[in-house]
Amino acid sequence: MSTITIIGAGNMATAIGTRAAESGHTVEIMSRNPAHAQATADRIGNGAVAGTYGSVPAGDIVVLAVLHQAALDVVAHYGAGLAGKVLVDITNPFNADGTGILTTEGHSMTQQIAAAVPDGTHVIKAFNTIFGHVLAEGGPHDVLFAGDSPEARARFAELVTSLGMRPLDTGGLESTYVLEWTAILLMGLARNGAGWNVALRADVG
Amino acid sequence: MSTITIIGAGNMATAIGTRAAESGHTVEIMSRNPAHAQATADRIGNGAVAGTYGSVPAGDIVVLAVLHQAALDVVAHYGAGLAGKVLVDITNPFNADGTGILTTEGHSMTQQIAAAVPDGTHVIKAFNTIFGHVLAEGGPHDVLFAGDSPEARARFAELVTSLGMRPLDTGGLESTYVLEWTAILLMGLARNGAGWNVALRADVG
Repeated sequence: MSTITIIGAGNMATAIGTRAAESGHTVEIMSRNPAHAQATADRIGNGAVAGTYGSVPAGDIVVLAVLHQAALDVVAHYGAGLAGKVLVDITNPFNADGTGILTTEGHSMTQQIAAAVPDGTHVIKAFNTIFGHVLAEGGPHDVLFAGDSPEARARFAELVTSLGMRPLDTGGLESTYVLEWTAILLMGLARNGAGWNVALRADVG
Repeated sequence: MSTITIIGAGNMATAIGTRAAESGHTVEIMSRNPAHAQATADRIGNGAVAGTYGSVPAGDIVVLAVLHQAALDVVAHYGAGLAGKVLVDITNPFNADGTGILTTEGHSMTQQIAAAVPDGTHVIKAFNTIFGHVLAEGGPHDVLFAGDSPEARARFAELVTSLGMRPLDTGGLESTYVLEWTAILLMGLARNGAGWNVALRADVG
């Protein structure tokens, strides 16, 4: 088991943190608002702690669970503190009505983050194609992910497996843009009959 | 049961036609090459027939099972013959190595086709997010689709259900662009560990 740091204290931070803590990982929650970080750590329980926002994360895997509008500012604020980490971007750069994305091919939110992190930091996109309340309910969900190094992708896959879910590698850093569109697919399914508990899966033949 | 016309005589035409004919529909195959149309109709069996390329399709649902490069030419060639039909675009406008698409937001292949068909023709995108050999194997696959009118989407969903598969509506015409990216997601999964028999699904909660 390992230590997972989550930057953010909202629903996705709580859902991911709860699964990690229940699976025996040490969870550290960091938020610009220390009271929120503490409240989220308390809600997660199982030994979860609040860390100091902006200090070097305790975890080798750091989940960036903030809104897309804040992601680059947060990465800049942490700066060298992220060196050597596997940084997991869960953001969805949706347009105002959630029917499209604000990023462009080759410049996904994850690719923008990858351009801003210190050398030796690896960036993964994941958890953006599953609704937070679905993740929170538990169950052996499929977790679609992509990222910029085979080693980081293997490390992330190991984490997902330890949480009782199935990691599904969709490719390198360029594939993070595809995952941003995949979240729009999920929204389209939810709005057109599948409902808001829908989850994407793959049958692996 | 109804009549389904398929323009094209390749693997996807065969896979879709076989499922339709096995499900009791009358299948008409049209191809620029009459010998190919006849051979594909024979392979499909169950009463499938070859139609005359360019004549008015017998089916109220017409599946455009040609390569994306040919789609607009074929639509122009049929012209008014497509009036009132539900036209199902299955094309994938992939780039050369299948890592991205050649279309742009608001101008999906399906949207380009929709702009070229006669008034009263409705356009659906479907079957582009499932591999032909997976479709051919049978089974209760999920069929992601999108299209430009609720009535046409309902008619298409009815067809998919009659083929023993589950239709999953992902939205209106703008969502056809998302489905073009979804095929790239499928390619990414296939190439990064899931293998070439992978099929996308949704758990509907």
